[in-house]
Amino acid sequence: MNKINDDNRVKAVALAHGAFGTLNGKTANGVILYEEEGRYNVLAIIDRAKAGEDAGEVLGIGTRGIPIVESFEKALKLKPEALILGVAPPGGKLPDEWRENIKSAIKNGMDIINGLHQFLNDDPEFAELAKEYGVRLVDNRRPPENLVLANGECRSWKVPVVAVLSTDAACGKHVSIMEFMRSAKKAGYNPGFVATGQSAMLLQNDAEAVVDAIPIDFAAGEVERLTKQSIEKGRQIIFVEGQGSLSHPAYGPDSMAVLYGCWPAATIL
Amino acid sequence: MNKINDDNRVKAVALAHGAFGTLNGKTANGVILYEEEGRYNVLAIIDRAKAGEDAGEVLGIGTRGIPIVESFEKALKLKPEALILGVAPPGGKLPDEWRENIKSAIKNGMDIINGLHQFLNDDPEFAELAKEYGVRLVDNRRPPENLVLANGECRSWKVPVVAVLSTDAACGKHVSIMEFMRSAKKAGYNPGFVATGQSAMLLQNDAEAVVDAIPIDFAAGEVERLTKQSIEKGRQIIFVEGQGSLSHPAYGPDSMAVLYGCWPAATIL
Repeated sequence: MNKINDDNRVKAVALAHGAFGTLNGKTANGVILYEEEGRYNVLAIIDRAKAGEDAGEVLGIGTRGIPIVESFEKALKLKPEALILGVAPPGGKLPDEWRENIKSAIKNGMDIINGLHQFLNDDPEFAELAKEYGVRLVDNRRPPENLVLANGECRSWKVPVVAVLSTDAACGKHVSIMEFMRSAKKAGYNPGFVATGQSAMLLQNDAEAVVDAIPIDFAAGEVERLTKQSIEKGRQIIFVEGQGSLSHPAYGPDSMAVLYGCWPAATIL
Repeated sequence: MNKINDDNRVKAVALAHGAFGTLNGKTANGVILYEEEGRYNVLAIIDRAKAGEDAGEVLGIGTRGIPIVESFEKALKLKPEALILGVAPPGGKLPDEWRENIKSAIKNGMDIINGLHQFLNDDPEFAELAKEYGVRLVDNRRPPENLVLANGECRSWKVPVVAVLSTDAACGKHVSIMEFMRSAKKAGYNPGFVATGQSAMLLQNDAEAVVDAIPIDFAAGEVERLTKQSIEKGRQIIFVEGQGSLSHPAYGPDSMAVLYGCWPAATIL
């Protein structure tokens, strides 16, 4: 089954050299594992290490008809509308090849959906090119503006909120939530999903922002604001994605900010 | 006793209109209450509401020989070297009078020690004037650069660390610590003090940074880095200033970041 023209979602390809199907590839893995619930209709994964294989097969979920191709140029032939950058480059810095791919994508009228720590809008070359070609550079890790302080209203919400905290970074928070969402729907509930990290922002959700880059005074407030948006959609149960983990020396406060901001009825570690 | 020329510290005056001796004036109150432990030799408080009184008398600690004067111009006659902005202006925005005072201070060769949310270095008029007159604009609330992630080494430190968390904002954290420091010294200990907020940054301490504006991923790391600096001074007991409070809906994560970053042997609420 080829997904092209199956739906009205933006057609995207994801750059994931050397990472697809590995722990480092969690963002690229997620858009395939939950392609049905994704915000993007994923046409192909770009990873020369696994070129020629089917993306679903690599992840053990059966053939999905989504090819893994060796290069951006190959992916371009599928006429994608967006390029997803979901996998951190080795060493952190954008390799020259990636920069060329991004520029080529912009020149082909594609939006760039960027989950990396580097902001493309802050790169003059990308910013000018995007302006020239009228495409969007979406820096998902950019902290939201107009931050507000939590006022503690979350403590009196009636809708059950479940914080999915997990016990470490990159150990399955957003994957777990997608399974909970499927189960809740199957059981006849109307569940909501609040995304707090860049991987989950590529999936359909009620509200989203990257929490880990927010000044600490405002982190709980942002979680409260997002969760309230989900409540206002009339959900019967809401899953809030945690960040870091309670036991992590550096990211423990991130987990705590999620707890302070959604004051859950239950947590899942 | 007039403090002029008593010591080698920078001679400063503090702007505190309408706030000195009140809860809103905590920063200005602190530099008088603990003037002996202060980083600045405070020559006068500027507060027209209490002009003519002695600063120590207003705070109930007896005559200190530090006058409260009605205007910046009056304070200028004492030949101060720095102007402390420690009290938030009503409504948050700098009133015209304060702007004029700051400009006059700069033109008189004074450094500006700024604990407000507004950064003076980001104000082109102040920044240019400071450059012209060769004075420093010290924005104490500016988050430090070169932030690091906590690595959890605090969990194996041998020196007893005491986190002074308190039960609300503005209820006496840095005042309590100054009393603990005095008591510890009197009992023969060599105590250390880690400042995490702008009020405490006006007092002598082992290490300091405003924690509440740091992106949450790095907040615990900054506390760990600061506390380590105090340990490296060979202290026998270290008091770490908390931020917010554990029960505060918005500032709870700030308190948690202090706990994660210094992993205390004891906490004081």
